Amino acid sequence: KHSDDPYDFARLPGDHITHYDLNKLTATSSALSHKEKVLILTPMASFHQQYWDNLLRLSYPRELIELGFIVPRTSDGDEALRNLETAIKKVQNPKAKTIPKFARVTVLRQDTDAVESQLEKDRHAFKSQKKRRSQMATARNSLLFTTLGPFTSWVLWLDADVVETPVNLIQDMTGHNKAVLAANCWQRFYDEEKKEDSIRPYDYNNWVESDEGLRIASQLDDDEIIVEGYSDLATYRPLMAHFYDAEGDPNVEMQLDGVGGTCLMVKSQVHRDGAMFPNFPFYHLIETEGFAKMAKRLGYDVFGLPNYLIFHINE
Amino acid sequence: KHSDDPYDFARLPGDHITHYDLNKLTATSSALSHKEKVLILTPMASFHQQYWDNLLRLSYPRELIELGFIVPRTSDGDEALRNLETAIKKVQNPKAKTIPKFARVTVLRQDTDAVESQLEKDRHAFKSQKKRRSQMATARNSLLFTTLGPFTSWVLWLDADVVETPVNLIQDMTGHNKAVLAANCWQRFYDEEKKEDSIRPYDYNNWVESDEGLRIASQLDDDEIIVEGYSDLATYRPLMAHFYDAEGDPNVEMQLDGVGGTCLMVKSQVHRDGAMFPNFPFYHLIETEGFAKMAKRLGYDVFGLPNYLIFHINE
Ligand SMILES: Nc1nc2c(ncn2[C@@H]2O[C@H](COP(=O)(O)OP(=O)(O)O)[C@@H](O)[C@H]2O)c(=O)[nH]1
Ligand SMILES: Nc1nc2c(ncn2[C@@H]2O[C@H](COP(=O)(O)OP(=O)(O)O)[C@@H](O)[C@H]2O)c(=O)[nH]1
Ligand SMILES: [Mn+2]
Ligand SMILES: [Mn+2]
Repeated sequence: KHSDDPYDFARLPGDHITHYDLNKLTATSSALSHKEKVLILTPMASFHQQYWDNLLRLSYPRELIELGFIVPRTSDGDEALRNLETAIKKVQNPKAKTIPKFARVTVLRQDTDAVESQLEKDRHAFKSQKKRRSQMATARNSLLFTTLGPFTSWVLWLDADVVETPVNLIQDMTGHNKAVLAANCWQRFYDEEKKEDSIRPYDYNNWVESDEGLRIASQLDDDEIIVEGYSDLATYRPLMAHFYDAEGDPNVEMQLDGVGGTCLMVKSQVHRDGAMFPNFPFYHLIETEGFAKMAKRLGYDVFGLPNYLIFHINE
Repeated sequence: KHSDDPYDFARLPGDHITHYDLNKLTATSSALSHKEKVLILTPMASFHQQYWDNLLRLSYPRELIELGFIVPRTSDGDEALRNLETAIKKVQNPKAKTIPKFARVTVLRQDTDAVESQLEKDRHAFKSQKKRRSQMATARNSLLFTTLGPFTSWVLWLDADVVETPVNLIQDMTGHNKAVLAANCWQRFYDEEKKEDSIRPYDYNNWVESDEGLRIASQLDDDEIIVEGYSDLATYRPLMAHFYDAEGDPNVEMQLDGVGGTCLMVKSQVHRDGAMFPNFPFYHLIETEGFAKMAKRLGYDVFGLPNYLIFHINE
């Protein structure tokens, strides 16, 4: 009597009752054969065509994918919103019958504060990190709390400036069957010295806790935070970015204590149990790094794939 | 071009894109005149007809109310589910044209663990509180993360054994325009000594932090918790339950540090910013008491209404 397909809104029962048995919702290593639904969440300060093209290349069936975006209330955000909506409409247009459609697309315009300037040197300055990361945490939470449905099996956090991933990204990452799993985010660049195209590590938020990291944390005031990737605060935490082995097995897993959000696959149950992105210091960590700690407090293990590369834009 | 009414699923756009501007979502002291949408969330281990009758008596328009329930995967839960569905269907039946309908009803069957026995003496035993409250926290989070929409202005947490509230409960509580606001939960009983009907305090989870409470917390191990309302652990925290003044103004507010979940009005933004129910010790607090602490860490104030009574069932 109730529609089995929660996406089929036209068929939602006239009584507007929907009934879900969370026991029957799976998140397994065979996501595709179980038709598990994946929610891709992207906070988006700027729209990059390469991000969108990469998203459209993903081989997981679009009818099993929901998209959620949150754009800041800034002039950058307004431009991103216009470009995003134009791109979405081309795909989702009911008249474009041959283009497969995403199950649902939700676009949110943020109500909380955002930083106007998004120049890389500004946003990476250590002193602006606490405020910025805390605002990012709030944006991620707004997006998550508002879009997660009772039928979502997996949440893929994918930053708007991730421009290249394997086409089987979703199958590959769900295949590991981990509660939380981070890909290794690198960047393409032109090596002026060697005069050739090359790659270098980009995201330093995927790390393993160190004795020194714990020692520093134990000496901090309650409201102080550690953000990884700054040499002024040497934690000696092993960073997944440095574990990449071009010759190694791309399926190698390593256990992590902190994660970044550039490309992060999360079983929806982890979020549903309460794991969010703290915008306040949580064990001296915030945002995605605080999320990893929270997932661990909720009893889940956190992993990364050092040899599985995805690429950040190089502007 | 997009449906303005998110409840009108039949009118969801053919492209399945929905666009929400969180800036335009309000949660004000005039909820009704702004047509603000309220999500009533109830974890339900047993179905009480008096709870349902009280819910149906609320005067806030049903088309502005969504309901969400989560029932445990126990034999009690199965029975509650059957009774709940029967009750819902009577109201939501499209053929019963004269009965106003709730905008949406979501019923979840819990996948996480639940305690089989719900005898009051068992569930209130101090030693079983940590496990029980932690399971309740997970149930509340599953319900919250799964049902909160981009158009929800307020979330009213209402326990399934709250059997009597003022009919203007929603207007009254939103009228205070507080981020988090708890009603005072008492209980009717027959006073055998005085041979008359009487009332007594029930929910001790609404409290103000005390020096002694802070002192005890500072001496606890990281993983130990304080649950309020047990004389074996005397925190001397002022309890809102004891502040009731039958002659007093029902609109009197008091600032709180811990809250219970029996009848709790929350601006959706508080949850959307990330406030959830920790199932692990958070500043030595869990579940609704931990939620209050988290709301405060997120920068919100927490209040209670000592003279505004609602009643818990007396079994
Ligand atoms: N909604 C929202 N998204 C943002 C904001 N700032 C950055 N983003 C997006 O969040 C992601 C991470 O931010 P980014 O600036 O790339 O971080 P970085 O690459 O670590 O320097 C990207 O997808 C950005 O487009 C913001 O204030 N609000
Ligand atoms: N989903 C779910 N609801 C529960 C569970 N245990 C209790 N409840 C409901 O949660 C609310 C609070 O629990 P209750 O036992 O009344 O707590 P107390 O009144 O403080 O002893 C009530 O609405 C119960 O029906 C559980 O394991 N799962
Ligand atoms: Mn980036
Ligand atoms: Mn109760």
